[in-house]
Amino acid sequence: MTNRIISADPLLPSQRRKIRLGVIGLGTVGTGTVKVLLDHRREIERRLGCELVLKTICSRTIHKRDVSWIGRKVETTNEWKCVVGDPEIDIVVELVGEIGTARAIARAALDAHKHVVTANKQLVAEYGMDLVARSRAAGVNLGIEACVAGGTPILHAIREGLSSEHFTAVFGILNGTTNYILTEMERRGCTFSEALAEAQAKGFAEPDPTFDVEGYDARYKIAILAMLCFGQAVIAKDIPVQGITRIDHVDFAYAHRLEHTIRLIAGARRRAHGQLEVFVRPMMIPRAAQLAAVLGATNCVLLVGNKGGNTTITGRGAGGEPTGVAVLSDVVQIARDIVAGGHSTTALGYTDWHPAKIVTSEDSVVGTYMRLVVRDRPGILARVCAILARHHINIDSVLQEPDHPKKHLPFVMTLEPIQQKHVARAVADIARLPFLAQPPLTMPFADLP
Amino acid sequence: MTNRIISADPLLPSQRRKIRLGVIGLGTVGTGTVKVLLDHRREIERRLGCELVLKTICSRTIHKRDVSWIGRKVETTNEWKCVVGDPEIDIVVELVGEIGTARAIARAALDAHKHVVTANKQLVAEYGMDLVARSRAAGVNLGIEACVAGGTPILHAIREGLSSEHFTAVFGILNGTTNYILTEMERRGCTFSEALAEAQAKGFAEPDPTFDVEGYDARYKIAILAMLCFGQAVIAKDIPVQGITRIDHVDFAYAHRLEHTIRLIAGARRRAHGQLEVFVRPMMIPRAAQLAAVLGATNCVLLVGNKGGNTTITGRGAGGEPTGVAVLSDVVQIARDIVAGGHSTTALGYTDWHPAKIVTSEDSVVGTYMRLVVRDRPGILARVCAILARHHINIDSVLQEPDHPKKHLPFVMTLEPIQQKHVARAVADIARLPFLAQPPLTMPFADLP
Repeated sequence: MTNRIISADPLLPSQRRKIRLGVIGLGTVGTGTVKVLLDHRREIERRLGCELVLKTICSRTIHKRDVSWIGRKVETTNEWKCVVGDPEIDIVVELVGEIGTARAIARAALDAHKHVVTANKQLVAEYGMDLVARSRAAGVNLGIEACVAGGTPILHAIREGLSSEHFTAVFGILNGTTNYILTEMERRGCTFSEALAEAQAKGFAEPDPTFDVEGYDARYKIAILAMLCFGQAVIAKDIPVQGITRIDHVDFAYAHRLEHTIRLIAGARRRAHGQLEVFVRPMMIPRAAQLAAVLGATNCVLLVGNKGGNTTITGRGAGGEPTGVAVLSDVVQIARDIVAGGHSTTALGYTDWHPAKIVTSEDSVVGTYMRLVVRDRPGILARVCAILARHHINIDSVLQEPDHPKKHLPFVMTLEPIQQKHVARAVADIARLPFLAQPPLTMPFADLP
Repeated sequence: MTNRIISADPLLPSQRRKIRLGVIGLGTVGTGTVKVLLDHRREIERRLGCELVLKTICSRTIHKRDVSWIGRKVETTNEWKCVVGDPEIDIVVELVGEIGTARAIARAALDAHKHVVTANKQLVAEYGMDLVARSRAAGVNLGIEACVAGGTPILHAIREGLSSEHFTAVFGILNGTTNYILTEMERRGCTFSEALAEAQAKGFAEPDPTFDVEGYDARYKIAILAMLCFGQAVIAKDIPVQGITRIDHVDFAYAHRLEHTIRLIAGARRRAHGQLEVFVRPMMIPRAAQLAAVLGATNCVLLVGNKGGNTTITGRGAGGEPTGVAVLSDVVQIARDIVAGGHSTTALGYTDWHPAKIVTSEDSVVGTYMRLVVRDRPGILARVCAILARHHINIDSVLQEPDHPKKHLPFVMTLEPIQQKHVARAVADIARLPFLAQPPLTMPFADLP
């Protein structure tokens, strides 16, 4: 140790305690977590000033798997209760995925006075406040960094790095699968189905992609972000969600003509009277905005603060090892607290929560992109315009790309900013017109700060 | 309080302790910090679960100033020892700016067992390890978030959010003044002097701009980032630094032809044998890179991790209130530790530090942009090329924009990747050629991951 010039740890190595982990679940994230720990253990221990020992790994299928890469000193089990019940284990890392088991493990571990780290966004979105209350009662901590935007340190940023900020809004690209699909459609000019098939072939999308492409994954994540940013008890199911399945490559052609692009945005912003507008939906994003530069499976979160302005964090949103970095960073923070002798569960950032008053975007005043696909004939524009006029909606521009068949002719209208409920009513009327080849598609222009 | 649905704090309000602050220094950052605290106090206390009281403000000129906006309950003094010696004060916020006084305050406060938060980058870069050792000996904490990139939570991200990562490199745009000047030169096509004068008029640059434009400010910041990322005791003065005063608007014209732009980059990356390459210098940045999109006084840090890949944090790098958010976020973290009953000083991320082995970039293999300004005559290119050939340097391209006077003709050569020491030697030879109107300017092409 002659090359160490300062040792700020007042304990001799022999006095240092060991902190022991049990990891439950050995899927993509579990495997990534163990790999990061094995590869970075020396570095982590230099940061921590004590030993961090992986004592036990639990997986239902552990006896069928080759776990020789983990090393012989690590115990294995297929019964999670052996981990939770082990008096030597300080921190339980819950990475099983399935919500019922995840919840049972987290509750049992907290009630047994063990610190818990989880990567399960559904668990935290649905039962986060219950888990925080249990962890406080038990005097232990709860780590949730891996639940949102994988390897990016977004939750630490909100909860600690910007803990004195009053946030007015948060917007994110939080689902790597949909962003990969959208940016492939944009880059290659392919259809949604083609991009989805490619994403599935590459392992970026599930065989049943509903959870991602319909926005449900992003909905859990924005629920968690909104809880941390605003201290409100947000119920994920209350958040309106719209997926990307109806986006066509022609929409990117029009978006580019308008100096915009299309991204699936999960957002939350303060409205009057303590209300929160929360949503997941595809939006038109100015090409100069940072969110427009987010390509492939990358995640990005834009925090809007009252005093500090805009802060953006971009990084890997998924993958075993990036998510493992997030899991273990929570482990390190908890271990530091154990070394320091104090615990405070700040997992959700506040010590109390107001009930969330979630409102839809229907009252927000924004411009709208409306794409119609029609069987072309005279008088179409006149009838659409008449409906818009009846709803007091001004037209900003009408765009039509050449070279489309007459029977399936897409064209686009952009509408001046107006409350979105008026647009919704007009679109409902337009949808009844006989010459439409498919229902109208509308997307708001994002009014990013 | 009827609208609070969950209170996870086990203490009744009457049992909650108050945590008291003293703020020393009421310049831009001190004023911003106090404003953020006054405006966000309720929100901060909801996050903290206890009262946070600004007890005393200290400024040398306090008696000449109107401080009525702060409220009558806050005590004022012009003697910092009154703050440090006050037994009721838990946290001393040091914002005086002048290094000697700042150091005296920080040392005295830590030795008096008070937690310290500072925004002084020079203090932390030069005496950070001494302060950490003192804070550990005293069982108190040290907050330094405001020292680097103002309102962005970059130090928390490195130290906590990514504490299990093994960083391989960190690159940043860390000085708002120079980035403002460069992006104004780029946007308006003006000279360095014009952009500097405008920055001074707008208050973005000091009357003596040396500290910013020669890169010294960024040098302190990259020294701190490197300490946190790599656990090495980096001495700021060992870091080679090159400013932006020689950049001309013609360089932006050439950079754009090459699909690049120019930014002042402060960087550090691991080299073989535990060495660190650390530098501050203008570089050619691909226009598609996130760092190229950083405009005006914004700051941006790109962290390169072994497992988590690239993480980027962008935000306001300066200004009283954004920096105040960073100062107070450290205060909140310390207050949480006080509430929880444990303290661990992790200000610099590690519990021990290796001595830094800083190397220059002379061995790094990168492409080079070389701009010569010549009094035009036949044979110039032949002589320059002969020198490059003698140093075994391959030429990638030769560019010449039209419409420049013959007596002051700029042209650009891009050189294929080679160790930079060879380029430096060739440039020294080229500098002696008789037809040069000014010394050659070279910039490396950034090899960003």
